[in-house]
Amino acid sequence: MHVHDHNRFDRIGMPEAVLCSPKTPAQLDEIVAELGGGDTAPVLFTRLTAEQLSKLASETQRRLEHDPVSSTAYLNGVLPRRAGRVAIVAAGTSDLAVAREAQRTLHFCGVTGDLIVDVGVAGLWRLERRLPEIRKANVVIAVAGMDAALVSVLGGLVHAPVIAAPTSVGYGVSEGGRTALHSSLASCAQGVTVVNIDNGFGAACAAVRILGLLGQSSEVAAR
Amino acid sequence: MHVHDHNRFDRIGMPEAVLCSPKTPAQLDEIVAELGGGDTAPVLFTRLTAEQLSKLASETQRRLEHDPVSSTAYLNGVLPRRAGRVAIVAAGTSDLAVAREAQRTLHFCGVTGDLIVDVGVAGLWRLERRLPEIRKANVVIAVAGMDAALVSVLGGLVHAPVIAAPTSVGYGVSEGGRTALHSSLASCAQGVTVVNIDNGFGAACAAVRILGLLGQSSEVAAR
Amino acid sequence: MHVHDHNRFDRIGMPEAVLCSPKTPAQLDEIVAELGGGDTAPVLFTRLTAEQLSKLASETQRRLEHDPVSSTAYLNGVLPRRAGRVAIVAAGTSDLAVAREAQRTLHFCGVTGDLIVDVGVAGLWRLERRLPEIRKANVVIAVAGMDAALVSVLGGLVHAPVIAAPTSVGYGVSEGGRTALHSSLASCAQGVTVVNIDNGFGAACAAVRILGLLGQSSEVAAR
Amino acid sequence: MHVHDHNRFDRIGMPEAVLCSPKTPAQLDEIVAELGGGDTAPVLFTRLTAEQLSKLASETQRRLEHDPVSSTAYLNGVLPRRAGRVAIVAAGTSDLAVAREAQRTLHFCGVTGDLIVDVGVAGLWRLERRLPEIRKANVVIAVAGMDAALVSVLGGLVHAPVIAAPTSVGYGVSEGGRTALHSSLASCAQGVTVVNIDNGFGAACAAVRILGLLGQSSEVAAR
Amino acid sequence: MHVHDHNRFDRIGMPEAVLCSPKTPAQLDEIVAELGGGDTAPVLFTRLTAEQLSKLASETQRRLEHDPVSSTAYLNGVLPRRAGRVAIVAAGTSDLAVAREAQRTLHFCGVTGDLIVDVGVAGLWRLERRLPEIRKANVVIAVAGMDAALVSVLGGLVHAPVIAAPTSVGYGVSEGGRTALHSSLASCAQGVTVVNIDNGFGAACAAVRILGLLGQSSEVAAR
Amino acid sequence: MHVHDHNRFDRIGMPEAVLCSPKTPAQLDEIVAELGGGDTAPVLFTRLTAEQLSKLASETQRRLEHDPVSSTAYLNGVLPRRAGRVAIVAAGTSDLAVAREAQRTLHFCGVTGDLIVDVGVAGLWRLERRLPEIRKANVVIAVAGMDAALVSVLGGLVHAPVIAAPTSVGYGVSEGGRTALHSSLASCAQGVTVVNIDNGFGAACAAVRILGLLGQSSEVAAR
Amino acid sequence: MHVHDHNRFDRIGMPEAVLCSPKTPAQLDEIVAELGGGDTAPVLFTRLTAEQLSKLASETQRRLEHDPVSSTAYLNGVLPRRAGRVAIVAAGTSDLAVAREAQRTLHFCGVTGDLIVDVGVAGLWRLERRLPEIRKANVVIAVAGMDAALVSVLGGLVHAPVIAAPTSVGYGVSEGGRTALHSSLASCAQGVTVVNIDNGFGAACAAVRILGLLGQSSEVAAR
Amino acid sequence: MHVHDHNRFDRIGMPEAVLCSPKTPAQLDEIVAELGGGDTAPVLFTRLTAEQLSKLASETQRRLEHDPVSSTAYLNGVLPRRAGRVAIVAAGTSDLAVAREAQRTLHFCGVTGDLIVDVGVAGLWRLERRLPEIRKANVVIAVAGMDAALVSVLGGLVHAPVIAAPTSVGYGVSEGGRTALHSSLASCAQGVTVVNIDNGFGAACAAVRILGLLGQSSEVAAR
Repeated sequence: MHVHDHNRFDRIGMPEAVLCSPKTPAQLDEIVAELGGGDTAPVLFTRLTAEQLSKLASETQRRLEHDPVSSTAYLNGVLPRRAGRVAIVAAGTSDLAVAREAQRTLHFCGVTGDLIVDVGVAGLWRLERRLPEIRKANVVIAVAGMDAALVSVLGGLVHAPVIAAPTSVGYGVSEGGRTALHSSLASCAQGVTVVNIDNGFGAACAAVRILGLLGQSSEVAAR
Repeated sequence: MHVHDHNRFDRIGMPEAVLCSPKTPAQLDEIVAELGGGDTAPVLFTRLTAEQLSKLASETQRRLEHDPVSSTAYLNGVLPRRAGRVAIVAAGTSDLAVAREAQRTLHFCGVTGDLIVDVGVAGLWRLERRLPEIRKANVVIAVAGMDAALVSVLGGLVHAPVIAAPTSVGYGVSEGGRTALHSSLASCAQGVTVVNIDNGFGAACAAVRILGLLGQSSEVAAR
Repeated sequence: MHVHDHNRFDRIGMPEAVLCSPKTPAQLDEIVAELGGGDTAPVLFTRLTAEQLSKLASETQRRLEHDPVSSTAYLNGVLPRRAGRVAIVAAGTSDLAVAREAQRTLHFCGVTGDLIVDVGVAGLWRLERRLPEIRKANVVIAVAGMDAALVSVLGGLVHAPVIAAPTSVGYGVSEGGRTALHSSLASCAQGVTVVNIDNGFGAACAAVRILGLLGQSSEVAAR
Repeated sequence: MHVHDHNRFDRIGMPEAVLCSPKTPAQLDEIVAELGGGDTAPVLFTRLTAEQLSKLASETQRRLEHDPVSSTAYLNGVLPRRAGRVAIVAAGTSDLAVAREAQRTLHFCGVTGDLIVDVGVAGLWRLERRLPEIRKANVVIAVAGMDAALVSVLGGLVHAPVIAAPTSVGYGVSEGGRTALHSSLASCAQGVTVVNIDNGFGAACAAVRILGLLGQSSEVAAR
Repeated sequence: MHVHDHNRFDRIGMPEAVLCSPKTPAQLDEIVAELGGGDTAPVLFTRLTAEQLSKLASETQRRLEHDPVSSTAYLNGVLPRRAGRVAIVAAGTSDLAVAREAQRTLHFCGVTGDLIVDVGVAGLWRLERRLPEIRKANVVIAVAGMDAALVSVLGGLVHAPVIAAPTSVGYGVSEGGRTALHSSLASCAQGVTVVNIDNGFGAACAAVRILGLLGQSSEVAAR
Repeated sequence: MHVHDHNRFDRIGMPEAVLCSPKTPAQLDEIVAELGGGDTAPVLFTRLTAEQLSKLASETQRRLEHDPVSSTAYLNGVLPRRAGRVAIVAAGTSDLAVAREAQRTLHFCGVTGDLIVDVGVAGLWRLERRLPEIRKANVVIAVAGMDAALVSVLGGLVHAPVIAAPTSVGYGVSEGGRTALHSSLASCAQGVTVVNIDNGFGAACAAVRILGLLGQSSEVAAR
Repeated sequence: MHVHDHNRFDRIGMPEAVLCSPKTPAQLDEIVAELGGGDTAPVLFTRLTAEQLSKLASETQRRLEHDPVSSTAYLNGVLPRRAGRVAIVAAGTSDLAVAREAQRTLHFCGVTGDLIVDVGVAGLWRLERRLPEIRKANVVIAVAGMDAALVSVLGGLVHAPVIAAPTSVGYGVSEGGRTALHSSLASCAQGVTVVNIDNGFGAACAAVRILGLLGQSSEVAAR
Repeated sequence: MHVHDHNRFDRIGMPEAVLCSPKTPAQLDEIVAELGGGDTAPVLFTRLTAEQLSKLASETQRRLEHDPVSSTAYLNGVLPRRAGRVAIVAAGTSDLAVAREAQRTLHFCGVTGDLIVDVGVAGLWRLERRLPEIRKANVVIAVAGMDAALVSVLGGLVHAPVIAAPTSVGYGVSEGGRTALHSSLASCAQGVTVVNIDNGFGAACAAVRILGLLGQSSEVAAR
């Protein structure tokens, strides 16, 4: 009954992906059975926790290459390697799940994503030490919860596109990630863009869209 | 007393800009006097309404190249032309102020921005007619208020990076732009990024960051 | 002790229904015992999960015709068949529970409801393929979470009344369904109406009210 | 430059309409000049206050048939008369602007809309006196601010489709209309649908979509 | 270590009460041990669920007279009987827990509280049938979730003080009770007052304060 | 066309009142003309500012007994004197408009209301000095903005019913009165009830309902 | 009628202050007349704009020492000088009004406050250049709007108490200051405290309370 | 992989601390193993519940000195004793977890913190009895949920810095602590500062920063 969007990668360059959290085990088993045939394209599964995975049919589990930290899984391998380097910068280990979701999505799309953690702005020297590494990337993903001050500081230090992925980590006014989201949108650094809370997948997809410019002409057109 | 960030363009590629809405006429006169000297760099003024402009000193007014639709002004000309083409797509004339702010910011940064308006999704055929033009752009800025459905539809039709600039146009639940903002963040199209409500300037800055990739190497590195 | 509204169907054409989620098993057993007599009218139970059902008395369970996907149950059969056709359109399987609640409520009221899923606007061609089928319906129910862009796109493509049933599916700003709700209310398509989040039952009841017009005079009265 | 949707009425039965509040006088003059030619279709202008009207070109003012209570105007007359009767019920004169916007929109679409005001539920007898009149309508529009209790009471008294148009009238928690909106969505009456706050236009459009069923077959199809 | 407010009843006429939900079993055991001596005053425990009760020491359980529907318990009996009659009106069985909390608190304070349920405004005739009974009360407590339309309807039908106790029952915009709270505060009926969501205890305390007027002089003082 | 509720005072003991803020001058002139005849009942006008008054017809102005501090006016005098005394306690002069609206409404209903201002809890000694006076009242209305701490302190000091009227005075989180409203609802003092923000009229109406108990029997009924 | 709190400074060390925004000119004239006698204590007036000042009696204007940037005024001079130095750090001139309110309040209390502006974190080098100066202060007040990232960066760089005064400057999600407030409360820097939005006065008062520790014993007590 | 900030205490006087709630057992075991060596500095663990602790490696559990009430743990002992005394005042036992987190954090930093509970403002005499004790402290931490009226009352009674730590205890509008937070920020007492909801740790850190002033010069500098 499912009408998956098999040619999405050709059409808009985006990966075929399945959001698992709102689906039942039976629905997921059915999707994997349908999409996991011999010569079909790679598919990415997101928000598939280890606990949810354990409730799937053993055949389904066998087919999926799962990563528990990011709650992602690959079906039918990954997409071919492509140009570009992305730095995924996170304030602390608390934001690791989202940072890893971004990294796994990039890897699925054939892109290298470097993880740089424990660089919160309350200790600026830690961030400064990693700056040369960050500046080598074509795109920077800033994963940050609480006050998301990391986003503004990073935006003021690099030329590259900076994509903020606010996280829901925290308590009180931080709980759920609205403060990190709004702080990222209100960033005093110019040209920072933002994705939904905890959306490491979306940040990686945005990076992939941007990396598409690497092969395009850089000549200045006549006005 | 002002310590402007004269070398921001060299440091992170972003334009020197002044947000005028929260400043008094006296503060703006002072800033223009200080920054408007003969050999200084171009400066962009945003959120400077025609009404606010009329309260500035005549010398200040003379120096500024003002556009009333976007409430922007240039001081000391604009930056040198650079590669890349941006499509600024807006559902209707109601969103024109934000769309023009993006276009004027791009022009200030030396980038060509094409305005494509009156393509709301409630009449899909109007959008489809303009698709070939939109697909030529390296980056797409989607300016949309109300339900911001335009963002998702565009994101599903093009390969390029799509930056959503939600607008505050509307009444009831649309008033102030929260619905357009949240709808853009929750977009079912993959890899769309978002800037603050009514932030045409920020969307253009993000596009400029992205266009920086045009001159970069597109070779696939060894893993 | 319960004073059920047995003649509601006669009075306003709406079904006798029981919302189960806030009730205890003992309260539900009592209601079924009271209403489940031989010659009483059909009753619809909503938000009765399989887990909740398993805690009811076996006699209660035996009497209820339960559907686990929609968490609905019928007592004393369903109402007589009546004219009209409703299309229930949903972006993906994640919204299936709400879509099925609408379908089951329609069936209870004697109305045929056709389910059309996996037609998200990020892949417009999937929706366009199903349009002829949707256009045959007297009423369209659009079940949509996240950005609810489906509502506006549908509203711009059909003449029929379109009732939006926003869903709580999603994370970050989508969580709980407020974004889908507000987006539906702010729809740029004209004449779309909206029901509460996850209220497939209410959308179906509204459709039934509307179908009541099928038998009414269509003569243009003298002004 | 404007690409108006001239054939919207043919395509989806909805009127060509222009939302004026976010537009400048110059933009409105241009739109009227473009659309107001001899043989073009009728156009409805909404949220055009008397004050805004006074700033338009005299030629523009001459062409528009304006109503100050509802802030609406007609250009090129109205659409042909069609079948159906709508009752517009409002708790008090405070909600009159929204109620009149609904009535004027209906009239523009060729439909008769009867205004029934001063029937707040804090004095039930006033509502009960008008019930026979309300029950004659094919569709009921309930215009209500503050607690919007009128919506639920009406929904429990009539068979017809009930469309709630919450209003922004009030102070404290009522200010802006969120309470009336949420109360309408949470209505304990079954099958009530809701439009955006102060959206009398949208409620009327929804009524027009519903009245489209009057001419359709009411035979019960074989299952 | 606890410093309970033993003479609160003398000082302001309010009962000594313990809110249990945020306390640990050990804390509750300690409080009961301290307050449960032979000649001490009656104490009311609120928000003590059956599950929480089962985790207390058996001696504690023995001393408490518990009611599972309202999650309340009495220690050392109840206060002496006093004048006055309160009607507790609730739309449905879903609001029973809050209604019973009000009734149990009244009983603890020596006041008779009559429970009148299943009188939702979507079926006005059910409420009208019970009006004579309600009008006999000195104070009316209206327990209502969802749209809380019951509050306004009641306020328009009786002379007595009406205290609204909004409940958190519902889903979508009703979830958590904010809609019922705001709707009660915005009531179109005059002179209705409101307590916190789910606060049956507070509504009963307010009624007790009001009943204190029964014994006071009703002579009209010289101005 | 207006259907005023002339017998409301007989039916539920509440005054005939007109909320002026959402009405046009023409609507108000019409209402006063209709209700201001020789032998009709007294009518209270609320939220009628001096500025609004100055736009009414001179005949209308002549008939209304206006008070600019509270923005209230009397038409056809006031209601007969009745028993009871109400203390209206306010933290500072900033809350005077709301406190006076309560006092004027009470006076209209024939009740004496004593104003006690400048007793904020940040200087407890000022409140303590006025306590004997406050304790003489049958009902206490606590008018408070900002943190509304006055409500809890008062509720812990008096036996009488305490009605909180939160005000919109303040800036930042206080602006609009939500903090004062929520703080009043969450009061740690038992049995405090609350009305809408800035609703001095509603607080007075609630007091009038309560004062109705003064003449009622205080015998303890047989259970 | 006013009961001012003349001895507040003795009692809790806080200045006698009058919040002017919600008061009428007549009320302010009365307060100044009452408090402005020969030998009375200094009084601080806050939120008194130049426009409001111009509407006061000329005698009132003559007595007040007004500052238009901060909208503050002194009556009867200022308090005696006292120990301690406060650094008031602000990201830009847009936050100057709040920063100056803090400085003027400190000056009124006899404390030196140094203003350090244009040190936004998007250009970290500007902040670093001023660090030695900031580190000399006993207390730091961080005035910041938008994302308030300055608060976290400062909190990670200094030992002194850091008081965040979020400002309402900005648009979209920044408008009104909620984002700056929440970001400050969620700061990843330890031990930062926060005052209400735009509350430069309160931040200064908090600093004065803290400076009271300067004269207190610093011996480590026996445990 | 972790880059802990070992010299934070030297740099800004703040303790090395680990927020445990968002971390997995494996992550916590790794952190303790890395930081728990023989001669390393003391580390504070916050939001480590007894249940979470029980899932850690036994070696980890052995090394941590855990307190279940506050969910805190010490690794490598505590910091040296230092001057100053802090009063931690809480309205009731419901706020004990937060109050204890503050006390444990202070103890970790070498500071004495006295706990003063059960002093809610609804019974002012209980607070007044403890005032002499509270006034001896250099800093006061006010831990308060619900309406947080305690914060304003305390702020009006003491000279010392008052830090409000709002708590999430409560139901309805109190749930989650927003009301207590906003009420604290809007406090009518001057110079009160606020930390995030439930942030006893942050309140203690702020107190430690303030106590740093005890050793500093109190001479009045030349202006």
